Amino acid sequence: MDTSNVKALAFDVFGTVVDWRSGVIREGEELGRRKGLQDGIDWGAFADEWRGKYAPAMDQVRRGETPWTNLDALHRASLEELTEEFGIPGLLTEEEKEHLTKAWHRLDPWPDSVPGLTRLRECYILTTLSNGNVALLTNMAKRAGLPWDLILSAELVRHYKPDPETYLMIPFLLGLRPEEVMLVAAHPSDLRHAQEYGLRTAYVLRSQEWGPGGEAEPPDPSFDLVVEDLLELAEKLGA
Amino acid sequence: MDTSNVKALAFDVFGTVVDWRSGVIREGEELGRRKGLQDGIDWGAFADEWRGKYAPAMDQVRRGETPWTNLDALHRASLEELTEEFGIPGLLTEEEKEHLTKAWHRLDPWPDSVPGLTRLRECYILTTLSNGNVALLTNMAKRAGLPWDLILSAELVRHYKPDPETYLMIPFLLGLRPEEVMLVAAHPSDLRHAQEYGLRTAYVLRSQEWGPGGEAEPPDPSFDLVVEDLLELAEKLGA
Repeated sequence: MDTSNVKALAFDVFGTVVDWRSGVIREGEELGRRKGLQDGIDWGAFADEWRGKYAPAMDQVRRGETPWTNLDALHRASLEELTEEFGIPGLLTEEEKEHLTKAWHRLDPWPDSVPGLTRLRECYILTTLSNGNVALLTNMAKRAGLPWDLILSAELVRHYKPDPETYLMIPFLLGLRPEEVMLVAAHPSDLRHAQEYGLRTAYVLRSQEWGPGGEAEPPDPSFDLVVEDLLELAEKLGA
Repeated sequence: MDTSNVKALAFDVFGTVVDWRSGVIREGEELGRRKGLQDGIDWGAFADEWRGKYAPAMDQVRRGETPWTNLDALHRASLEELTEEFGIPGLLTEEEKEHLTKAWHRLDPWPDSVPGLTRLRECYILTTLSNGNVALLTNMAKRAGLPWDLILSAELVRHYKPDPETYLMIPFLLGLRPEEVMLVAAHPSDLRHAQEYGLRTAYVLRSQEWGPGGEAEPPDPSFDLVVEDLLELAEKLGA
């Protein structure tokens, strides 16, 4: 498919650029060791549950049942439920809960992310398009060395993906036409919404997002590009 | 003054980081040569006039007399007046006017800006805090190699400096306290407003902003730092 008029790439972040699951497990295990909990908690299940609470919490905001709440605050609230569910409600101090919530700021990139983005940045404007709040995305980028040109977040329009305001923010703020922007994401539903608003699409097959042995959803035939990782994306986009 | 709790530096851009006057003159002269106008227009006066229309145009937006209009659109409207004033109303095509308006996206940094920011970025979060719109600041940064961590603009809150929303956006979005953010600017009035909202201040003495032979305004004794350029800022902030 002809992608020669694409000028900016907008990246979904959790799962597409960073490996949230391993990062949360690593931070949970560290906390577990400090608290002497190492045999008590399945941190893989903990990470999956935490991520599982993400969409329902955002949907409450999207439906207007909860006033605007950024992702740090949603993560903090769902951690409260998690500590109940995993039988450790009184065990963590307020400071430890704050620190664990910020684990989402300290996620590691997939091995191809930094070299792939570095190549792509030579030829394209690179922005985030994430439900993560600005502070989270900024702290993550600095720690992981993600070379964004700018950080755009659901927080700036106070609407979570897949609300149209999020996708439309990218061409609007960059002074581009929608077809000059390509969403890069590991989730077909995200890409389908981007298509509705006229953006181009690149699907990244991240079979390991939910742990080893996983499988990526099949791509829609309508996606402009399907790639294994961000190095292949750079290759296909001539960067 | 103790600046050890500063975590983020927010930069005014026009005049502080980039030399708008030389950039506009350069683009004007190029256009003049292409159109055979080289003897007809004093591009230094043209640049100064264009910049002079900046504050009144934003003030109209700030007072609500004009609905929100981004800086590209304000520059484009004031260019229309300028072509009248300089006696070349019918001379430029629509495309040439668009191109000349985008001269503000193609300004060169002061010689110390890129090396200074590169050092500062190792130790601090670097963001813009500019009345320039997001596309302008993004295109400028890519062309000039300005290593921002993120781009924050008046456009995101639809308020121009010195409205409080602009200064307060920085700590709010970065999850910091106001005193953990330092505004870096070449204009005392900008710094005084930042102080009102609790930000720290660094004054950069850019005597050449309005051309050779200029003089910087004297600093207020209350400014946290006063520096000649961004390399001295890096030095003083231990970066």
